[in-house]
Amino acid sequence: MPETTEASDTYSYLGPAGTFTEAALKQVPEAAGKAWRPVNNVGEALSDVIEGRSVGAMIAIENSIEGGVSATQDALATIPGLRIIGEYLVPVNFVLVARHGTTLADVKVVNAHPVAYAQTHKWLEASLPGHGHIPATSNVAAAASLLDGSLADAAVAPPGITEYHDLTVLAEGIGDNPNAVTRFVLVSRTRTLPEPTGSDKTSIIAELPDDTAGRLLEMLEQFATRGVNMSLLESRPIGDALGRYRFVIDLDGHILDERVADALLGLKRFSPKVVFLGSYPRADKQTISVSPRYSNESFVDARDWLRALISGEPA
Amino acid sequence: MPETTEASDTYSYLGPAGTFTEAALKQVPEAAGKAWRPVNNVGEALSDVIEGRSVGAMIAIENSIEGGVSATQDALATIPGLRIIGEYLVPVNFVLVARHGTTLADVKVVNAHPVAYAQTHKWLEASLPGHGHIPATSNVAAAASLLDGSLADAAVAPPGITEYHDLTVLAEGIGDNPNAVTRFVLVSRTRTLPEPTGSDKTSIIAELPDDTAGRLLEMLEQFATRGVNMSLLESRPIGDALGRYRFVIDLDGHILDERVADALLGLKRFSPKVVFLGSYPRADKQTISVSPRYSNESFVDARDWLRALISGEPA
Amino acid sequence: MPETTEASDTYSYLGPAGTFTEAALKQVPEAAGKAWRPVNNVGEALSDVIEGRSVGAMIAIENSIEGGVSATQDALATIPGLRIIGEYLVPVNFVLVARHGTTLADVKVVNAHPVAYAQTHKWLEASLPGHGHIPATSNVAAAASLLDGSLADAAVAPPGITEYHDLTVLAEGIGDNPNAVTRFVLVSRTRTLPEPTGSDKTSIIAELPDDTAGRLLEMLEQFATRGVNMSLLESRPIGDALGRYRFVIDLDGHILDERVADALLGLKRFSPKVVFLGSYPRADKQTISVSPRYSNESFVDARDWLRALISGEPA
Amino acid sequence: MPETTEASDTYSYLGPAGTFTEAALKQVPEAAGKAWRPVNNVGEALSDVIEGRSVGAMIAIENSIEGGVSATQDALATIPGLRIIGEYLVPVNFVLVARHGTTLADVKVVNAHPVAYAQTHKWLEASLPGHGHIPATSNVAAAASLLDGSLADAAVAPPGITEYHDLTVLAEGIGDNPNAVTRFVLVSRTRTLPEPTGSDKTSIIAELPDDTAGRLLEMLEQFATRGVNMSLLESRPIGDALGRYRFVIDLDGHILDERVADALLGLKRFSPKVVFLGSYPRADKQTISVSPRYSNESFVDARDWLRALISGEPA
Repeated sequence: MPETTEASDTYSYLGPAGTFTEAALKQVPEAAGKAWRPVNNVGEALSDVIEGRSVGAMIAIENSIEGGVSATQDALATIPGLRIIGEYLVPVNFVLVARHGTTLADVKVVNAHPVAYAQTHKWLEASLPGHGHIPATSNVAAAASLLDGSLADAAVAPPGITEYHDLTVLAEGIGDNPNAVTRFVLVSRTRTLPEPTGSDKTSIIAELPDDTAGRLLEMLEQFATRGVNMSLLESRPIGDALGRYRFVIDLDGHILDERVADALLGLKRFSPKVVFLGSYPRADKQTISVSPRYSNESFVDARDWLRALISGEPA
Repeated sequence: MPETTEASDTYSYLGPAGTFTEAALKQVPEAAGKAWRPVNNVGEALSDVIEGRSVGAMIAIENSIEGGVSATQDALATIPGLRIIGEYLVPVNFVLVARHGTTLADVKVVNAHPVAYAQTHKWLEASLPGHGHIPATSNVAAAASLLDGSLADAAVAPPGITEYHDLTVLAEGIGDNPNAVTRFVLVSRTRTLPEPTGSDKTSIIAELPDDTAGRLLEMLEQFATRGVNMSLLESRPIGDALGRYRFVIDLDGHILDERVADALLGLKRFSPKVVFLGSYPRADKQTISVSPRYSNESFVDARDWLRALISGEPA
Repeated sequence: MPETTEASDTYSYLGPAGTFTEAALKQVPEAAGKAWRPVNNVGEALSDVIEGRSVGAMIAIENSIEGGVSATQDALATIPGLRIIGEYLVPVNFVLVARHGTTLADVKVVNAHPVAYAQTHKWLEASLPGHGHIPATSNVAAAASLLDGSLADAAVAPPGITEYHDLTVLAEGIGDNPNAVTRFVLVSRTRTLPEPTGSDKTSIIAELPDDTAGRLLEMLEQFATRGVNMSLLESRPIGDALGRYRFVIDLDGHILDERVADALLGLKRFSPKVVFLGSYPRADKQTISVSPRYSNESFVDARDWLRALISGEPA
Repeated sequence: MPETTEASDTYSYLGPAGTFTEAALKQVPEAAGKAWRPVNNVGEALSDVIEGRSVGAMIAIENSIEGGVSATQDALATIPGLRIIGEYLVPVNFVLVARHGTTLADVKVVNAHPVAYAQTHKWLEASLPGHGHIPATSNVAAAASLLDGSLADAAVAPPGITEYHDLTVLAEGIGDNPNAVTRFVLVSRTRTLPEPTGSDKTSIIAELPDDTAGRLLEMLEQFATRGVNMSLLESRPIGDALGRYRFVIDLDGHILDERVADALLGLKRFSPKVVFLGSYPRADKQTISVSPRYSNESFVDARDWLRALISGEPA
């Protein structure tokens, strides 16, 4: 089946070439030498995976300045069959590019994706007072449009854009926050779990059973009583009515860590809807330290103890 | 000082006339007959308030489909001196408009703000397969551009747009979710609290003292032990590093309700940074029911009891 | 081995015949027609079981007026190999008995076990002002001593004492609290668990890991997060230093109820020392109602879900 | 009024002279040179205080081996108007005394208070195998009875007993646990609080609002959310029905410490019945360390912040 073979050789990402998403995909060893399929948005990338056109999709999930990427979180919450298998960090910085011959003093109108525009706003205000803004659908499209009849004089684009488009760089490092970083995840249809590494993350999405006061607290106690730390908690509207939320949660640890497995059992019993998005190695490689009380051994010992009590064997 | 006088007569809102934000402002009795100042974004609206050009700014804070409005939440977290004094709900629906003479069959390219485009995407896919999308900076701008040389054939716009622009409606009710609603807040510089009504909301933004596991749980227990329900919890990146969040929280009740005041005291002691955004009447007018254990009387009785113990008076 | 055969036919109880403990033993169908061995105290009763002289020991564990029986709780905490297999309630009431010919007006000195004396103190004060008290080692011994040279004129004794001793009843129902009841447990060496009945109790004794503030709360959350109710919590000194306690705990439910088993696993991991004393039918036959969230099915469903996630099977 | 004057000079204690309770009273500087009134039990000691015969009563409240003294806890829970104003520790050790001329080998029967008997049981079993036990109403009475026609050959008594009775010591240090200690409290009717010392304890007794699962947890969270540590939690039957308990609680800190006051307010609102027994210096003089989050300053700062918010003053 050539199509399947092809799919297993293809990775989808928010294109075109030159985006931060492509920079994330470059970090994936398995993707090297495979076909990379640029798409227009998160929905298309995930459709490629679901419908078998790609073996994986690289999508942005969180930005250190802008926060969670709603479209990604909502897609992962509602499209079944997806799994996160890897996490990647890309520093977010920007350059201002223009057609050859343009100088900074010439720039009256800037083309920029709204998020990029927001993240370079201070620099633009200071350097180009009174400039106009034309929104673009992507950072790379902003740059490309300059060569395609755009009314803009310059564009905000990712570093390295000049590898792909014949433009000149008017200014570098124009991002307002030099530490800005975007977190990407690689999503696939596989049901095989990545091996635990000791530095893993588990992503889930869960709903509360009802609106009773204190329900969120109860849900979080399912993690706390197993010594499982939560590195992310985001609420997203379920969408059926104002005030109804689902929670996007990242836990420290792997589903094959006993304490995480047990916390997931507790969560599953508590919550009417839990989506397991995957356990995967952390991009920052930080080792998770776990109290001996919540070590795998502690879980195994407790089970042995309980089993002996129930079977009637001597302890 | 004519300028101040003028400011007290002016309200800022995301313009131009015809936006959902204007629809929210129409719900404010105090704003009737005053000057309404259309601005381009949340930042400008809040600047008008801070700098005294307006007495109030109407800004969107949450959408039942899209979730919290990040720009609003982040502005309220970081700009000091602001207070929410009212909450308003506007149903979100859309029409497809075009220049006179255009029929639905003629539409190849649609101009739409990205959020409006996302919320009408199913209808557009079904009714206009293969259409192109040009992003606009606002819903009204999308419509206006049709009369201003836009390459688009139609625009997604709020109902009522034809009061402001000479366009024809090709289709109504094209929103994917008929229950979609946006929550707006009226923001001012006043430090006078709206009177408690028995149906109030208190908005705060707080940071955790550190990254220790369980800190969020501890913070939420400050509310639970006072019987204070939380209707919203959103995390937003602080922005200095990935993984550091502040929390946007709505509590049921008014700061002049004893249980809310006491919970705020607990929160203030716990959190290194708390921003009180205001106590104001709920848009949905739902009465908050409170267990007698957490009634104002219960707080007063307890204080009387403690005072007698400390003073040495007979109980 | 005739001795073993004999042991399996023998039950030990706090004697002599006529005590409340004997009344509890009369409630045990399996004990009917077997040898009943009266002993002097809890320690002897438990030694009989441990050393194989008896198949079961009936011991008082709690009185509705006096509270937990410390000697019983401490013995169960420290003697390994014991299991509670049944619970029995005996109403506690008292009669005042004397040698034939004695009238109430003659009574100057009363013989009574200190606990019985405390529980009839109001009646004695009112009816026999100025009387003296001689302490006895048991309620029955108090009565028996009257026929054995005691200086006392009367004794406080259990109802029915005249079946065993040739005495006259001067007054009935002299207990200060007509609802007083003592809870007894039947203790054995068996490691076979009584069948779950839907109305069961599980008794444990546990220590906290250390003196850190909030440890008790953490321990109790192990029960709360599994929906397991606690009907008894008593602290007992460990005995090595002031301020160090172990906790005697009764849980609603049976170790073969999934939620109880899971709570015990959580407790075992948390606590450095847990003694499982048994799961057994409640004396009051009250059915435990359990939220569907914590039903056995909910636990099985969650495990199936987790197993599928881990194995990679389709959900 | 000579009687009142006399009362203010009198201290009641469990007598007679020579008891551990007298040893506790010797630790009270204010009691030196005053009249010491020996009584027969806790009830009489507290009646002396309530009825004005004594300014203070020294009573045992907890033993490191036996646990809480039920009679004391129940009396403090039910008799209104009492306050603990001091705490004292007395090491508990025992001697075996006899009439002059008796040797250890002669001892067949031992007179001992049941608690003293329990605490010397191992030594007695080892040294006097097969001995008999006659219960006494107090440790001193056991010794005194030897000179008053007792059938016993020896008595278990507190060290120093020979200062009061002409007896000979057969053996010293016969307590099974050399670290055993009893905690005493000095109880008065004063409503004046002892000054905070930085090393204080606050004693309360509280009931739960109802039998709903998790209520105890909720009550303890009132302390935890204010950073107040609990050094003692004992349950005592309320006495009206099996399974209904009140809780005897010792908190670290003084009612004049802000965090303790606030926790008491929370407790008062939560619990249908709270008895404040007093704040007083700890016997062990251990300084309580408090996180800055729960310092007095933190409470004052939070109140100032709230007051400014409510008054509308600039922060």
